[in-house]
Amino acid sequence: MTHARQQALEYAHQNRERFLDELKEFVAIPSISTSPEHAGDVERCAEWVANQLRSLGMDNVQIMPTGGHPVVYGEQLKAGKDAPTVLIYGHYDIQPVDPLELWTSDPFKGEVRSDYLYGRGSSDMKGQVIASLKAVESIVRTSGTGNLPVNVKWLIEGEEEIGSEHLGDFIKKHAKLLKADFCVNPDAGMINEDAPTITYGLRGLAYFEIRVYGPDHDLHSGLFGGTVHNPAQALAELIAGMHDKKGRITLPGFYKAVRKVGKAERADIARLPTTPKHFLKQTGAPALWGEPDYSPEERVSIRPTLEVNGLLSGFTGEGSKTVLPAWALAKISCRLVPDQDPETIHKCMVKYMKKHAPRTIKWEVKNLHNSGVAITEKDSVGVRAMAKGLEQVWGKRPLFKREGGSIGVVVQLQKHAGVESVLTGFGLPGDNMHSPNEKLHLPTWGRGIDAFINMFYNLGS
Amino acid sequence: MTHARQQALEYAHQNRERFLDELKEFVAIPSISTSPEHAGDVERCAEWVANQLRSLGMDNVQIMPTGGHPVVYGEQLKAGKDAPTVLIYGHYDIQPVDPLELWTSDPFKGEVRSDYLYGRGSSDMKGQVIASLKAVESIVRTSGTGNLPVNVKWLIEGEEEIGSEHLGDFIKKHAKLLKADFCVNPDAGMINEDAPTITYGLRGLAYFEIRVYGPDHDLHSGLFGGTVHNPAQALAELIAGMHDKKGRITLPGFYKAVRKVGKAERADIARLPTTPKHFLKQTGAPALWGEPDYSPEERVSIRPTLEVNGLLSGFTGEGSKTVLPAWALAKISCRLVPDQDPETIHKCMVKYMKKHAPRTIKWEVKNLHNSGVAITEKDSVGVRAMAKGLEQVWGKRPLFKREGGSIGVVVQLQKHAGVESVLTGFGLPGDNMHSPNEKLHLPTWGRGIDAFINMFYNLGS
Repeated sequence: MTHARQQALEYAHQNRERFLDELKEFVAIPSISTSPEHAGDVERCAEWVANQLRSLGMDNVQIMPTGGHPVVYGEQLKAGKDAPTVLIYGHYDIQPVDPLELWTSDPFKGEVRSDYLYGRGSSDMKGQVIASLKAVESIVRTSGTGNLPVNVKWLIEGEEEIGSEHLGDFIKKHAKLLKADFCVNPDAGMINEDAPTITYGLRGLAYFEIRVYGPDHDLHSGLFGGTVHNPAQALAELIAGMHDKKGRITLPGFYKAVRKVGKAERADIARLPTTPKHFLKQTGAPALWGEPDYSPEERVSIRPTLEVNGLLSGFTGEGSKTVLPAWALAKISCRLVPDQDPETIHKCMVKYMKKHAPRTIKWEVKNLHNSGVAITEKDSVGVRAMAKGLEQVWGKRPLFKREGGSIGVVVQLQKHAGVESVLTGFGLPGDNMHSPNEKLHLPTWGRGIDAFINMFYNLGS
Repeated sequence: MTHARQQALEYAHQNRERFLDELKEFVAIPSISTSPEHAGDVERCAEWVANQLRSLGMDNVQIMPTGGHPVVYGEQLKAGKDAPTVLIYGHYDIQPVDPLELWTSDPFKGEVRSDYLYGRGSSDMKGQVIASLKAVESIVRTSGTGNLPVNVKWLIEGEEEIGSEHLGDFIKKHAKLLKADFCVNPDAGMINEDAPTITYGLRGLAYFEIRVYGPDHDLHSGLFGGTVHNPAQALAELIAGMHDKKGRITLPGFYKAVRKVGKAERADIARLPTTPKHFLKQTGAPALWGEPDYSPEERVSIRPTLEVNGLLSGFTGEGSKTVLPAWALAKISCRLVPDQDPETIHKCMVKYMKKHAPRTIKWEVKNLHNSGVAITEKDSVGVRAMAKGLEQVWGKRPLFKREGGSIGVVVQLQKHAGVESVLTGFGLPGDNMHSPNEKLHLPTWGRGIDAFINMFYNLGS
């Protein structure tokens, strides 16, 4: 271990209590992005973050407007052209706190009980933002020059909890400013406190609304049943045909672009503690279901899926009404994996409908929402530096996982700025994020600061 | 033509204007059974009908209570034990009149314009009730004895427009009083004014709600999609399997009790003007659908069907929500033909579910509503007398049809009193029943009175 790194780690350990005080200060600002009455607090919170960056000697610190709450930007580009540039992502906004009566302590007065700090945003993700800030502080206060061994840029947004609605446009507009070798995003958490985790892939999404039309008005099922193709039945037939008996999706060309996953990656996935038993417990389903050649964890990460999200047709109230409905609707979405893209999947869906929809009905497919697939090369400079940093602290190789869902900023950064994200973090599944009594496990948080310090030095060396 | 019959017909022709005045009087009573504010009018209307029966010399005239609006009963049993007994059915209640602004004339001031009487209930079915009353009047005023050539009983209810909810219990309780050789029910109308029509069969109904349960709570489709059997998809698969490729129903044993329909009956059905083109026009569907070995008219009358009446699962609002729903619901009903019965069909549905529902989901089938099949022997005394009566007036053999739906009273009379119904009537498809500007075609109505007179004499001779 280099001397500089050692000094930074010691600084971090010695200042842990003050770091916690500053985290409490950060938690005390009710930066609830969804509440118009907290707009002033959100603004104040952005100022607080900007001041932190300034106090660390970051340059070009700005509170930059978006269509909604502002983004805090800052940078330190003094490590030279050959050193990598890291974009550090965070969000300073938080979830609402209701129902307030279920909180044991004031959500804005960070209270320490046993190993935890309780308060809204303590884990999601003010604690994570402070971890990255304090790792940088530990380095700049001990490096002698006040500089980091790498170039850094900060992108700390204020709308993550409301869908990062304006962030895509912001990134598109400021793509050059945000250009980096990779982004480190500590909003993804760990599997458990003994399992440092790197999430290197997110699935994409193609969301459709399919409508099937039969008769031009609702019919009496007694007078007309048996003469026309019931649109609810026709829709059921079309949906039933979208999977084969093994749970594989039958849309023409659906799997064509799916990148083959190697043995090594599947072995990493097999190391994850998300066993079939885990999925049974989490879902409460009578049994698991899906492609038999893949484990449940593989089915939610490296395999694309097609799910019915909603069904509506005819009479759905209490009791009975003998209507033969004029139309039926399904919301259907596909989770996508590398190298599928939503536009092509839309075409696959239309092809399927053209091939299978009978001439006894009319139909339309609306493409409601698209989100690209995001994946980071596992042997990239960012992943290697972070994985090593985690291993240096926990004494074990991190778990590598892909996440089944999408995260807006990750996709937007990849799409508009060409920046891949390394997702990690020190939040735990039991942290009550978005719920009352949100908490942060302080020993894990401390290790997180150390892991960040190590990552920076791993990159710089 | 016998002398007595001739005299009755002449009486009817001579008194047609007065009959119309009395119909106007009947129409003027706003006996809207669904409106509590019209409860007094409904009662007054029952009185009016009872007075009509009394004025015709009927015996044992009573306004009999039910759980809701009363039934008017009366009888004349003077034709002797060997003469048949006819139960004459009618209802004195009417539909609401809103939207009132769409009426050209006051719905309760019967106004004659060209060949029509306009007013609420003129066709459905005060006009039909008056036709039966005035046929009887024409006979009793001209027969010399004041008696009819047959025994008659009257069952005129006040809740038909609200589903005859209390009539089943009433019939069960008074089965002996209502005992008759057959019931004549003029509430079924004609195919067109040149096509006198007898409806001799009604389909039964077995109505189910099927619920499919998957995970024990709604899941995030990104985090769990692909690991459990989506209940909306599983339901779609089950529904899709309920018909084969030819539109035949696959529930085990479903067709077992279906009575074979002979060539003669199918030839009668082929005479009906309800061509495939008619069904295309009435439904507005892109194409017809159903069992290829049967015509559309046969598919709605002599064939049982299974229709999806409703579908509900997950997110069905505007836009997209990536939920993997915990449950899905379908309302499904079967129209039944002789000799199917709803209880057996319920068992067929449960058998189907047991056979095809996978162990990856849970399910339940609720039997929401049952209605038996009603059919009248076509060579019965009642059908023969009515068919001949219609032919005597129109100069052509009536069309014989089965109706695709159910009519409560017909099923209840068959079930609880063992009385089969001959369904006919002089309402036309364009009469705007249940709509503004309801009207009665007066020339057809006059022929209807004549047909009733003929029927009574045909029975008596």
